[in-house]
Amino acid sequence: MSAGKLIGVGVGPGDPELITLKAVRTIAEADVVAHFAKAGKVSHARTIAAAHLRPEVVELPLAYPVTTELPSCSTAYRDALRDFYDQAAAAIAAHIEAGRVVAVICEGDPLFYGSYMHVHTRLARRFSSEIVAGVTGMSGCWSAAGTPIAQGDDVFAVLPATLPEDELARRLSGSDAAVVMKVGRHLAKVRRALATSGRLPRAIYVERGTMADAKMIPLAARADDDAPYFAIVLVPGWEERR
Amino acid sequence: MSAGKLIGVGVGPGDPELITLKAVRTIAEADVVAHFAKAGKVSHARTIAAAHLRPEVVELPLAYPVTTELPSCSTAYRDALRDFYDQAAAAIAAHIEAGRVVAVICEGDPLFYGSYMHVHTRLARRFSSEIVAGVTGMSGCWSAAGTPIAQGDDVFAVLPATLPEDELARRLSGSDAAVVMKVGRHLAKVRRALATSGRLPRAIYVERGTMADAKMIPLAARADDDAPYFAIVLVPGWEERR
Repeated sequence: MSAGKLIGVGVGPGDPELITLKAVRTIAEADVVAHFAKAGKVSHARTIAAAHLRPEVVELPLAYPVTTELPSCSTAYRDALRDFYDQAAAAIAAHIEAGRVVAVICEGDPLFYGSYMHVHTRLARRFSSEIVAGVTGMSGCWSAAGTPIAQGDDVFAVLPATLPEDELARRLSGSDAAVVMKVGRHLAKVRRALATSGRLPRAIYVERGTMADAKMIPLAARADDDAPYFAIVLVPGWEERR
Repeated sequence: MSAGKLIGVGVGPGDPELITLKAVRTIAEADVVAHFAKAGKVSHARTIAAAHLRPEVVELPLAYPVTTELPSCSTAYRDALRDFYDQAAAAIAAHIEAGRVVAVICEGDPLFYGSYMHVHTRLARRFSSEIVAGVTGMSGCWSAAGTPIAQGDDVFAVLPATLPEDELARRLSGSDAAVVMKVGRHLAKVRRALATSGRLPRAIYVERGTMADAKMIPLAARADDDAPYFAIVLVPGWEERR
């Protein structure tokens, strides 16, 4: 029996061509391919990597019990998620203990704001493990927009749109370049924080950044503040100097 | 005559397998492959992508006139670099005007702290252009170290080691997760700033992150403060909670 192993595999931001050679090989060689998805939906990572799964490979879909139905700060949400990650880790561990190599495929990069990390922290001390880095969603967005984001000695910040308005404004003022993530229903607040910090003129709103139907528009030119959860705002550092 | 085009192509952090399918195709289809390097050295991007260049492809090496010989804050350094990027852009433009597709290959991601941006800002308004996103050097490092870096609503910061010690400490205190870049001769200062901000116990020093001879060690366990220019320090946000 060969030794089982855990591999976190980044499949990139969405364009199936932005997957790495190492991810393709790892997925094709794996005994089991695991993927996270909303209950009843097909995993985005599964869709991106579809061409590289062997027809006979064992798939292990891991369906989130809750996503946006409960407030993310609630104890019920945290408990449900913790139990879910415990069960996902146990299902993966059973395969590894049986000598199988399990590739957990993830959108973007596995260790940068991804669900895979919850599995990794539960299993990486027990089993042999490896990470295949991937192109992040934010790289996909600034590349699709053709916008140089940071250079030289720039301070670059990733800021969740959930931060309070004054904190967002303060952090935007204190960074040369930034990406505001998970904009969704916070867009009006994000816009005000960008205006306060003087960054609104160079802010770019990006929706479905690496999909064929991507939307990219200077935020100042966008009339309304409706946005999907995964929309982001790019604040390039570049414009400030040459 | 076909239309010329500028393409910035990320080739990833160093491991030749961490290049994307899109980069491989773009390099193989390009008429000209341009790459930056120190004078007298082979370009790292060229080494990473070597297997994918057609034997008959036209190569355009772009050799930096100065790197660390002059202080980066000096007028002489800035003028030399500006002239160099002007000349590099002109050499690329001549190929594009002759109807050729020019792929400028770059380590990591083209628009994230890369030299390609200086060419892009000079040419992207004149010519058709495209960006092929790549895996960043920092993703390569935290993946090689197997260290989850940021999750959920974490604030993540990229900080240059050139910042003054008190500013480094303040920014480290104010971020959940961080990467300190270009550590080199600043390691003693970076270590003090990490200690002041309470982040030293979870800081990981990484040298040649995605090379076969990578060095990764908890910074607190490292005795001396000698480090090469491109060494980085990872400060994972993860340890703080589950």
